[in-house]
Amino acid sequence: MAVYEEKYSENKPDENNWKSHLYEIIFEADTPAGKNFDIVLIVSILLSVLVVMIDSVKSLRLAHGDLLHDIEWFFTILFTIEYVLRMICVKSKTRYATSILGIIDLLAIMPTYLSLFLPGSQFLLVIRILRVLRIFRILKLVKYLNEAELLITALKASSRKITVFLFTVLTLVVILGSLMYLIEGEENGFTSIPMSIHWAIVTLTTVGYGDIVPKTPLGIALSSVVMIIGYSIIAVPTGIVTAEISFASIEDREKKRPRNVCNNCGNDRNDSDALFCKHCGTKL
Amino acid sequence: MAVYEEKYSENKPDENNWKSHLYEIIFEADTPAGKNFDIVLIVSILLSVLVVMIDSVKSLRLAHGDLLHDIEWFFTILFTIEYVLRMICVKSKTRYATSILGIIDLLAIMPTYLSLFLPGSQFLLVIRILRVLRIFRILKLVKYLNEAELLITALKASSRKITVFLFTVLTLVVILGSLMYLIEGEENGFTSIPMSIHWAIVTLTTVGYGDIVPKTPLGIALSSVVMIIGYSIIAVPTGIVTAEISFASIEDREKKRPRNVCNNCGNDRNDSDALFCKHCGTKL
Amino acid sequence: MAVYEEKYSENKPDENNWKSHLYEIIFEADTPAGKNFDIVLIVSILLSVLVVMIDSVKSLRLAHGDLLHDIEWFFTILFTIEYVLRMICVKSKTRYATSILGIIDLLAIMPTYLSLFLPGSQFLLVIRILRVLRIFRILKLVKYLNEAELLITALKASSRKITVFLFTVLTLVVILGSLMYLIEGEENGFTSIPMSIHWAIVTLTTVGYGDIVPKTPLGIALSSVVMIIGYSIIAVPTGIVTAEISFASIEDREKKRPRNVCNNCGNDRNDSDALFCKHCGTKL
Amino acid sequence: MAVYEEKYSENKPDENNWKSHLYEIIFEADTPAGKNFDIVLIVSILLSVLVVMIDSVKSLRLAHGDLLHDIEWFFTILFTIEYVLRMICVKSKTRYATSILGIIDLLAIMPTYLSLFLPGSQFLLVIRILRVLRIFRILKLVKYLNEAELLITALKASSRKITVFLFTVLTLVVILGSLMYLIEGEENGFTSIPMSIHWAIVTLTTVGYGDIVPKTPLGIALSSVVMIIGYSIIAVPTGIVTAEISFASIEDREKKRPRNVCNNCGNDRNDSDALFCKHCGTKL
Repeated sequence: MAVYEEKYSENKPDENNWKSHLYEIIFEADTPAGKNFDIVLIVSILLSVLVVMIDSVKSLRLAHGDLLHDIEWFFTILFTIEYVLRMICVKSKTRYATSILGIIDLLAIMPTYLSLFLPGSQFLLVIRILRVLRIFRILKLVKYLNEAELLITALKASSRKITVFLFTVLTLVVILGSLMYLIEGEENGFTSIPMSIHWAIVTLTTVGYGDIVPKTPLGIALSSVVMIIGYSIIAVPTGIVTAEISFASIEDREKKRPRNVCNNCGNDRNDSDALFCKHCGTKL
Repeated sequence: MAVYEEKYSENKPDENNWKSHLYEIIFEADTPAGKNFDIVLIVSILLSVLVVMIDSVKSLRLAHGDLLHDIEWFFTILFTIEYVLRMICVKSKTRYATSILGIIDLLAIMPTYLSLFLPGSQFLLVIRILRVLRIFRILKLVKYLNEAELLITALKASSRKITVFLFTVLTLVVILGSLMYLIEGEENGFTSIPMSIHWAIVTLTTVGYGDIVPKTPLGIALSSVVMIIGYSIIAVPTGIVTAEISFASIEDREKKRPRNVCNNCGNDRNDSDALFCKHCGTKL
Repeated sequence: MAVYEEKYSENKPDENNWKSHLYEIIFEADTPAGKNFDIVLIVSILLSVLVVMIDSVKSLRLAHGDLLHDIEWFFTILFTIEYVLRMICVKSKTRYATSILGIIDLLAIMPTYLSLFLPGSQFLLVIRILRVLRIFRILKLVKYLNEAELLITALKASSRKITVFLFTVLTLVVILGSLMYLIEGEENGFTSIPMSIHWAIVTLTTVGYGDIVPKTPLGIALSSVVMIIGYSIIAVPTGIVTAEISFASIEDREKKRPRNVCNNCGNDRNDSDALFCKHCGTKL
Repeated sequence: MAVYEEKYSENKPDENNWKSHLYEIIFEADTPAGKNFDIVLIVSILLSVLVVMIDSVKSLRLAHGDLLHDIEWFFTILFTIEYVLRMICVKSKTRYATSILGIIDLLAIMPTYLSLFLPGSQFLLVIRILRVLRIFRILKLVKYLNEAELLITALKASSRKITVFLFTVLTLVVILGSLMYLIEGEENGFTSIPMSIHWAIVTLTTVGYGDIVPKTPLGIALSSVVMIIGYSIIAVPTGIVTAEISFASIEDREKKRPRNVCNNCGNDRNDSDALFCKHCGTKL
């Protein structure tokens, strides 16, 4: 999610020449030209991903394969030119090339060239969808960025708790899966321990494909226990994240709340229930 | 949900004649006649939706097709008369016709007429079920309306966070779906990228139909990761909405709390039975 | 849940004779005899439910049908005697017979007699499991009762919000189900509107049996939308209940919290952050 | 989870000889030798579990059975030597042998020896995965331990509420399952009451395998009700756990908050940067 955090216009050339103008158009969205460029770019990305999807549908590929092929190459050449232009107009080439957005930009054009040697790899082009994330940064959807940051803060704060939870869940599915392998055996579809662990994950997460189901009375009883466990412990990650989002939201609201300003020293960071200024001791 | 917000009797004729009396019966529920009208209306709506449902069951349609057909026409003509009466008695016809309830009232009679030209379209009549939402407004279930408003407030407040979340989820399923298409291929049921994205949504949301399941070891491993992700990130929207509902509920409780403000220090958090301010000791 | 609320020993005979002694044994659990009676009772209930379950398994019924039949009659006669004894020793017969526990006690013996005329109805005997709820009341698991009451309070407080939510969900599945019926049609398994509504419920609640799945591109797209909706709106009831449980828990903790006692008037209901007693204004 | 709570180096020999040096290496991780031992141990555990998993895949077992067999014995002998060394260097042998970690250490070597008499029991070796829990304790991931403790505290605090909830759910599935057995009958796959209870659990927990699905109109209607119930009541455990995690997190934050107590009025909620008490204005 570092995409969201990347500083805006940090890599702009210092001189005021055609490079910095190009930078304004390609990287920024303050000028009309810059805004139009971004809109055209995002529409192109979405269209090119759509073409890749259509190309994967057999009936459509058989009917319009050549056309789709041509469009894919058209967009790839377009994005290649764009990548080269980005490379030209940034101050530090290495910085852009090794930034997350720069790597995604490169990955978004590689698969088409790769498909010349490795047929089928053009489907990796869907990674282009990641470029659309740029929409948040470039179109300056600041409020959405703030909300995204709040979510990221909450998730970071809960990452250790979530790790402990996932570690426990993984230990649980390994043991439950192996038990089911011993109980049900290969004749009932639990062909191996990895397959049985897969079943345990499918059941514990309440996905429940139903391609493998227990047949023996003991297996049915154990699977019922697994389901009840899965249904109950989903409360744990939810509780963790909810608590953190609540804290983050409370802090966010606190920041926006009208403060209790002191007439004497002007300190505006008094709590709302303060009777005396915490800096100069004057009655509020 | 603007249905809930529509102001009551805002479109009543000013004069006190038969039109305003008709308005009182059809649009309001203060008079016995108005109340009875509403009860008959809601029962009619539910019955007419039931008839449409029965009509869709093949065995019942073959046995009682003509009767069901007649009842459908009976209700449609009834609701058409009602719509004309509503049109007649409102002050501003355009205002009613373009209001959400007015549009639903019209949509609720169209399909039967449409079915003369387009057989099968009579099943669209189930849209009539939306007319039942009127029950909240007309029968003055004020307390339910308050609760509904609280929920809507909470959902609106969390809409930006939910948008960021859904955007991330959609990006995730596009990439995961395409990966599975490459890993599993058409021979294992992942016939195209759109189909594989459908599988990713089915798995991530823990629905798990089981019509398409991974067969290759790598696909099974990746699907396990998708399930664990889906099982964990459901915590995010839940956390968002819970935090907002908590805030909305706290504000709702605050509003209803009797306030006992101190004239000396301005502290407004005294209990309702307090005789002295808890912060400065002044008699209240 | 009124079972939990029923007052203890409210129906005890006033006189101190064999009836009140019998009442102490059957209804109360303060004496050793009363405690032993309850333990025997609960074990009998669980055993009799187990017998009904075993009786429903074809292979076991064919092998031990007569034995199971005899045991069912044994427990039924036992519980009939118990019911008669309960009737004899209570002060007000009508009060016991119309209480929730009294009705369950009666329902728990009826099916066996009914099975003489209506074969198969003996399986209704599983309703006896409800009698086990008595375990909370009789064995005086007071702390569990408190927690249960807290949950019931929270659920009652959120009942109106949950009603609004369920009403919205039901409207949604009627419309989504009908749409899928029109899109997919009878040839793809969506045989009628009620069946399609069933599919919509299966999908929205993320159960996902997979017995009916969309086949057309439009149906697959719509079903993806339904899944995302279901995955997201589960946040709403969770948020509602979590907020109410939090409030109930906070109030519960408040009650148990050491209060801020006034040395002057002895008032012990001052808030923890109070500086002056709210009743007499003395500095704390 | 008592694994997390076990005190560190509580069983170290008092004398400073080769035993206490061995103890430092095997049980502790303060010395380089101790750290290396732990890393080698955890890698060995994971490898040995991996070998058991591979052994369960038929095609791999047929191809490399003997090799896998040898590796299993290699690790078992290794862990047996380790167990003996642990036994030698602890102060109290009984204490280690009866501790949770000691029992797991023993259980982790038993299955291989058992497989000499009972073929197939070597798959029980996956219990070794539990030994990896040691990673938290030994590698001193203190912060993770704190988070784990917070979660355990929250779950313990909510255990009574969760028990009441699970008790209600179990009563519900017994009654709903039996009802479905009567409605659907053996010809529709509901072959017995235990099987129908299994269906009720599969449906209520929203797992939804789809191996048994209702066919009769009444059964379909009831199953829809079960799904809506399951979808709604998942809010209850989530609400319980969320409330407790919030409380535990708040207390955790309170503990870490730097306190700034006023000597005059005793107010301890002053900000850390306050110079004057916010309630009485006294200099801090």
